[in-house]
Formats: sequence, C-alpha cells, structure tokens
Amino acid sequence: MTRRGNLFIVSAPSGAGKSSLINALLQDQPADMQVSVSHTTRAPRPGEENGVHYHFVSKDEFKTLIDQNAFFEWAEVFDNFYGTSRLTIEQTLDRGIDVFLDIDWQGARQVKAVMPESIGIFILPPSRKELERRLNSRGQDSETIIARRMADAVDEMSHYDEYDYLIVNNDFDTALNEFSTIVKANRLHLAGQRITHNDMLDDLLAD
Amino acid sequence: MTRRGNLFIVSAPSGAGKSSLINALLQDQPADMQVSVSHTTRAPRPGEENGVHYHFVSKDEFKTLIDQNAFFEWAEVFDNFYGTSRLTIEQTLDRGIDVFLDIDWQGARQVKAVMPESIGIFILPPSRKELERRLNSRGQDSETIIARRMADAVDEMSHYDEYDYLIVNNDFDTALNEFSTIVKANRLHLAGQRITHNDMLDDLLAD
Repeated sequence: MTRRGNLFIVSAPSGAGKSSLINALLQDQPADMQVSVSHTTRAPRPGEENGVHYHFVSKDEFKTLIDQNAFFEWAEVFDNFYGTSRLTIEQTLDRGIDVFLDIDWQGARQVKAVMPESIGIFILPPSRKELERRLNSRGQDSETIIARRMADAVDEMSHYDEYDYLIVNNDFDTALNEFSTIVKANRLHLAGQRITHNDMLDDLLAD
Repeated sequence: MTRRGNLFIVSAPSGAGKSSLINALLQDQPADMQVSVSHTTRAPRPGEENGVHYHFVSKDEFKTLIDQNAFFEWAEVFDNFYGTSRLTIEQTLDRGIDVFLDIDWQGARQVKAVMPESIGIFILPPSRKELERRLNSRGQDSETIIARRMADAVDEMSHYDEYDYLIVNNDFDTALNEFSTIVKANRLHLAGQRITHNDMLDDLLAD
C-alpha cells in the first residue's frame, strides 16, 4: 500500500533563498516529490508546459472549480485567474507524493486551517545585514525601495513562529541538508509508516 | 543560548537490533547525545565507571532520591535498587544534550505521561520469519523458549502505535540513517530553533 504524501508549506522573506532551496531539493526530479502547480486562465507562454508550470484552464473551467470549492485560495489579476487547487494537491498526496507549497504566511494560515496535518517550514536569512545585502544585490536600487523590501521581509518573518520547523540559510548546503532531513524524517512518522508497512505489521503481530 | 536537548524513548522487541542501533548512533561519542544512565545501589564491577555505566549511589542516597520523586521508575532487584532519574535527564537536556532512553512500552508510557514532549521511536524487525531467526541465533534453544521469546516480542510490538516514529530494521545502515535523520530533524523544530537562534531572531525582527 502506498503511504500518503506529506504537504510541506514553505515560506520565507525575499532574500532567504527559498526558491533556490526548493529547486535544489527537487532538481533530480524525484518521483516522490513535487512542487504544487497553480491553476491559471492566462495563455501559456513559449516554453511553458501544462501541468508543469501551470495547469492551464479556461475561465469556465476555473469558475466551475471555484463553485466546487476546489481552491485553497484564488485571485483575479489583470483579467486572469490564478488559484491553488486543494483537490489537485490531495490527489497528488494520495499517490504517495510529497507536495511543496511555496506561499506566504497568509496562504500558509489558510492551508493549515483546512489541512492541519500539513507541515510548515520557515526559512530565515542568517542576519539582517546579510538580508539587506541580498535585497540590494544589484546595488542600484534606491534607499526607499530597499527600505520597503526590508519592511516586507520583516513583516513576513514576524510570522516564523506559526511554522513547525525553522531553517537558517547561512550556508546553502547545510540549509539544503536540513530541508532534506525534515522531509525524510516526516516519512518515518507513525501515520505514514503504518500504511507503508501494513502487510508487514499484520505478519509481525499475528497470534 | 543553548537549545534544550530532546528526549528520545527507544523501544523494540528483542531481536529488532535496538541496542546495536543506539550504540552505532553514539559510537563517535558526539557531545550532544547521551544514553540515559540509570542509578543503582549495587557495587561497580571491574571496568564500570560512575556516570558512564551507572550512577553508583548508596542506599541512603537512593532512598533520598525516591523521597524527592526523582525517578520515573525504580525497582529493587536482589536487594539492590535500580532507577531512571528524571532529574538527571532534565539536567542533561538543559545542557543541550539529546538523551536516549532504552525502555519497554510500559516505561515509555510512564515517561510520556510525565514528559509529553519526549519523542517515541519504535524499531521493528522486517518480518516474523527474520525475527524468529534472530531470536534463535544460537540455534540451540528449545521450541518452548523460542515460543516464549516470540510471545514477548509480539506483546512488545503490539504497542508500536503509541510511538511517534517507526523504523523497520531490515538493512542496518538504512535503519541507522533513518534513526539519525529523526534525531537531526527534531533539532530543527521551532521550539529548539527559537532558543538556538534567539539573538539572530531579535536582530532580524528589529523595527
């Protein structure tokens, strides 16, 4: 029997290296891990694949999904719709695949409310000085813009304590290793293991 | 600031390889992990060190500890006392050291009742056939004795679902790796990380 996958909610301020960590974890395209793919009504751009970059659907299909309460959250941006489908995530989890949801603290709260078994991971930069450096890496932004980015980052970081795990991204390889460790350890939890090893447990516990 | 260590309760039936796994995990004597050391009133045997194999105490000292409610559990065996000191474990945890408690399901229940934050790991053999083989490894025990060992093992295993994590010891290196993964992941939990990174968090979240 296939264990159910785990849903990992990954949040971080800009500059913490969240996208790089998720990409690195999934770079060998493991069969048992996927990033959650959003639904959109906008047209695919050159090189974008259906089911990989987005689930491309018509507006009618999108509205039907809204009516079916399929989305954790959705939004209309410039006349196009975007949404994260709970049903799609559930189906992926049912196939034994761990799903990574790259969202902010507000999205994380919505998901936790609906799926309390989801696992929150918050990624932090190692210091304010380093964060400032990363937020101004091109070195050509105005102080106002940098101050705004920093305020947004502090706002996002102020919610770190709503997550289950904290990773400090000081050294990238260490952070990646910690990320991977969290994912692996959660596969060893009782709930998943008793499904994975159902037949073995029956054999071991027979009278 | 030092994070508080985690208390791991490790249980298994005879033949699952629990002692070998604990010994292998701790074989390089990492500064941040220790097996819980029991108290006893019996005299040290040649080669036994105080604080390593046992905490050797007098009967008066032991009885004082009982009066102080220091033990999770204690027993008198052949006129000597043996006990697991909660106070000693708490002091070790406070120094940031993970403690491993090698006890059966009954002891595990007692510890969980007093320290619900402790983390239970149950180790299983891969099959009944393999367990029988391991329980009769010398090949010279009577069927009655083997049947008794198997009944004890099944009794212990029937409590697997009272633990947080399950490890199946089919391949030793894989099981050791899983054991280590669980220990490492639990250091990344919010509660420990916010203590470890207290100063950094203050810096990051300053207005």
